[in-house]
Amino acid sequence: MNFEKSEFLYEGKAKRIFSVVGDSGKVWLEFKDDLTAFNAEKKGSFKDKGVINRNIASLIFNYLQQFQVPHHWVADIGEREMVVNKVNIIPLEVVVRNVLAGSTAKKFAFEEGTLLEKPLVEFFYKKDELGDPFVSDDQALMLKVASSQQQLNQLKAMALEINQYLIQLFDKASLKLVDFKLEFGVAADKKVLLADEITPDSCRLWDKETNEKMDKDRFRRGLGNIRESYQGVLERLRSVLN
Amino acid sequence: MNFEKSEFLYEGKAKRIFSVVGDSGKVWLEFKDDLTAFNAEKKGSFKDKGVINRNIASLIFNYLQQFQVPHHWVADIGEREMVVNKVNIIPLEVVVRNVLAGSTAKKFAFEEGTLLEKPLVEFFYKKDELGDPFVSDDQALMLKVASSQQQLNQLKAMALEINQYLIQLFDKASLKLVDFKLEFGVAADKKVLLADEITPDSCRLWDKETNEKMDKDRFRRGLGNIRESYQGVLERLRSVLN
Repeated sequence: MNFEKSEFLYEGKAKRIFSVVGDSGKVWLEFKDDLTAFNAEKKGSFKDKGVINRNIASLIFNYLQQFQVPHHWVADIGEREMVVNKVNIIPLEVVVRNVLAGSTAKKFAFEEGTLLEKPLVEFFYKKDELGDPFVSDDQALMLKVASSQQQLNQLKAMALEINQYLIQLFDKASLKLVDFKLEFGVAADKKVLLADEITPDSCRLWDKETNEKMDKDRFRRGLGNIRESYQGVLERLRSVLN
Repeated sequence: MNFEKSEFLYEGKAKRIFSVVGDSGKVWLEFKDDLTAFNAEKKGSFKDKGVINRNIASLIFNYLQQFQVPHHWVADIGEREMVVNKVNIIPLEVVVRNVLAGSTAKKFAFEEGTLLEKPLVEFFYKKDELGDPFVSDDQALMLKVASSQQQLNQLKAMALEINQYLIQLFDKASLKLVDFKLEFGVAADKKVLLADEITPDSCRLWDKETNEKMDKDRFRRGLGNIRESYQGVLERLRSVLN
């Protein structure tokens, strides 16, 4: 299929979004080289970050395809762009944790690296001006960010299923999937699709042997070698997916 | 029944707890005159606060008795004490909101006083050193503060039922029940009982006509006339319950 980029729609923290000529059911994503953390209080970038993340995201969407996980990816374009099915994003960050790290470890004073007995799913309300607060199911329904408890249950079930597939994939790539954030959207046919991206921006990935961080925590915590880590994740995924 | 106070067990922010001579299944609560707010960062007291709150709590436990709500109250003793059935407190503050105010209004940038379409139940993990964080059901289960999702569902159902009875009671007393916090405990026979207290320390109560605050927010926000407000709540309850 040939796609042609049309007018600019929206610029997010890590992507620019455009419409697609002659196809209102699709949008065009351009992955930027920008990195942000702590609700965009910390900003940075590195060369070709958008290229690396577009490639990682595409590999993962295509990997999930074999398990019939419904997702928005349609086609890669050039080095740092992709065409996806247009969805109405459900304004919840769906976080799955296998190992405690980050905000939840801090909130409950658990040592970073504590293995959970079973994966924990959390919802955060996507609202920059509120700092993306953690919400319960009942709060999400009160805020009308999800249509029903059934929809929330579906998001949790999809997130836990995707977690199983991703654990297997990253394990083969000698990476421990500590936690990750998903976003979902509702397509024109009302189907719920995995949207946004799965990349080192949205996952915590630790080397299986050394526990070395290979994700955005290198940026958040000023650990250096950010580009090398993102590139390393891409290379490891390529080596196990081909 | 005659009860005799035995040794001191524990001092909380608003109560002292003692054992009961010859009855290990009961404990003796003494209501203090102390007031605390913001995780005990703000401290105060007023004369006979413990007397007023003991009386309000007892009136409410006895009011709920007629609806077969299981609770821990057994008997009043003297002016500021009561004997209750001993329970293992479930370390969750169960908050019911009819109108948005306080932390949740702030979290979502809702105007204080926004009426909710239906009551919202929230859980906060009772842990002073963590600042009593808000938790989802899944986090409460991860922390093992509740035994099962069924137990959490039971707490929510009991809280919503109690809310209906309390709305009626306070409405007769010309008070709007904005929100309140409950604690539950598990008795020796495994039954879940309403525990702790229901008083102006644990409720937001606004005068039905003027919206004047008649609860601990007068202390939190330095509005003055704290004693008069607590005493007013007691007098209004007495006038509708006799």
